[in-house]
Amino acid sequence: MDTGDRLVGVIGGMGPDATIDFMSRVLARTPADKDQDHIRMLVEHNPRIPSRQLAMRGEGESPGPVLAEMAVRLEAAGADFIVMPCNAAHAWQDDIVAAINIPFVSIIDASVSKALQVGPDNGAVGVLTTPACFAAGLYQESISNAHREAVLQTNAELAEAIALIDRIKAGDKSEPVAAGLCELAGQLVSRGATTLIAACTELPLVLKSSMFEVPFVSSTDVLAEKTVALAMSDQVLPSQ
Amino acid sequence: MDTGDRLVGVIGGMGPDATIDFMSRVLARTPADKDQDHIRMLVEHNPRIPSRQLAMRGEGESPGPVLAEMAVRLEAAGADFIVMPCNAAHAWQDDIVAAINIPFVSIIDASVSKALQVGPDNGAVGVLTTPACFAAGLYQESISNAHREAVLQTNAELAEAIALIDRIKAGDKSEPVAAGLCELAGQLVSRGATTLIAACTELPLVLKSSMFEVPFVSSTDVLAEKTVALAMSDQVLPSQ
Repeated sequence: MDTGDRLVGVIGGMGPDATIDFMSRVLARTPADKDQDHIRMLVEHNPRIPSRQLAMRGEGESPGPVLAEMAVRLEAAGADFIVMPCNAAHAWQDDIVAAINIPFVSIIDASVSKALQVGPDNGAVGVLTTPACFAAGLYQESISNAHREAVLQTNAELAEAIALIDRIKAGDKSEPVAAGLCELAGQLVSRGATTLIAACTELPLVLKSSMFEVPFVSSTDVLAEKTVALAMSDQVLPSQ
Repeated sequence: MDTGDRLVGVIGGMGPDATIDFMSRVLARTPADKDQDHIRMLVEHNPRIPSRQLAMRGEGESPGPVLAEMAVRLEAAGADFIVMPCNAAHAWQDDIVAAINIPFVSIIDASVSKALQVGPDNGAVGVLTTPACFAAGLYQESISNAHREAVLQTNAELAEAIALIDRIKAGDKSEPVAAGLCELAGQLVSRGATTLIAACTELPLVLKSSMFEVPFVSSTDVLAEKTVALAMSDQVLPSQ
């Protein structure tokens, strides 16, 4: 492997629009004057992966086996490390990691680490997410490991969030959808969050940092930033 | 293979922005209410493919072998057919087709066929493209096979076009770039073109049909439309 020429394996399609947004952000964050300056990605864009929300509610097939198979195929095709621009799917991260011998770069850890960096010292971190990602407890665990307080959604707020996110998935990125999600984020701020994490890759399709008074961390953008840094460097990749 | 569940193999990264635009247009053209309604794509996003422009001028390595290897990997990974959202790279289509046993869907044929459909009967077809794609003669041949007249760029216009396209590849999608390309397209219309083909996938990143008085065919969009139709149908795939 040449320095700065790592192949990024992308478990994509959750949702399709979010994967494309992730790729765009990788491009935007790559210093490039011509095609050949950009990084190589192998993207398995598979929107048919079973619903993370249904699986977490016990109402549908687990996406774990499909995600692991995708990771194995990406490794076999030469990927140097794997990323997955979908927060909720990280509930099945253990299935993926157990199946591969290359590093898996977590969107959760990258997002929490960025939130600690950009937010005020010791401030509470607000997590705007989906019921499946919430139920998996991934952000709660990562924030607690960092000895910070997490400000979380109520069940009613989670239900409102997924209803709006499902509209984004159906192609509706209108102002009312953005306003609804913005209001849910505002609830977290009113309960003490001094930083916000958009802990679902659909959210940055309608939410922008300029909409908030506190630092706003797009999990998609943070993963893109980390992906570019790892792909272009010769630093040792993180182990699991 | 289930009906309507074909895996699309995408030879991507030429340029990276154009590949992402192609994927967005595939999404936009897929009738979908949820993730699982979208089609599956395996995208080898490899911007490191040798420059098509340099190779065609005899000043750089041929991209043919790399393109063929990518197609072989996509077939091995289960792709049912291959598309390549880059017009100039079709100069090496024979290398690709010789290496695989699945269909390769040409952006050239799809674009010419759409131009004949949307343009006036027997009208001349203007081709706005790059020096490499021009030198390969792909559009000239396809339009001539359809017994239509092609309106082509002069050498000076081709040089202006690639200079502007290189700016797009460097991230400059500003109004002056669009205006310059629009003017070059206007030259083709003034010389008799009654339909225009944007025969480079960078062009639709700055040009829109509303800018022209004659029908404007985006090769990216046409390939996306054909990709969705083939991926979602159970019709027999075209043979080579």
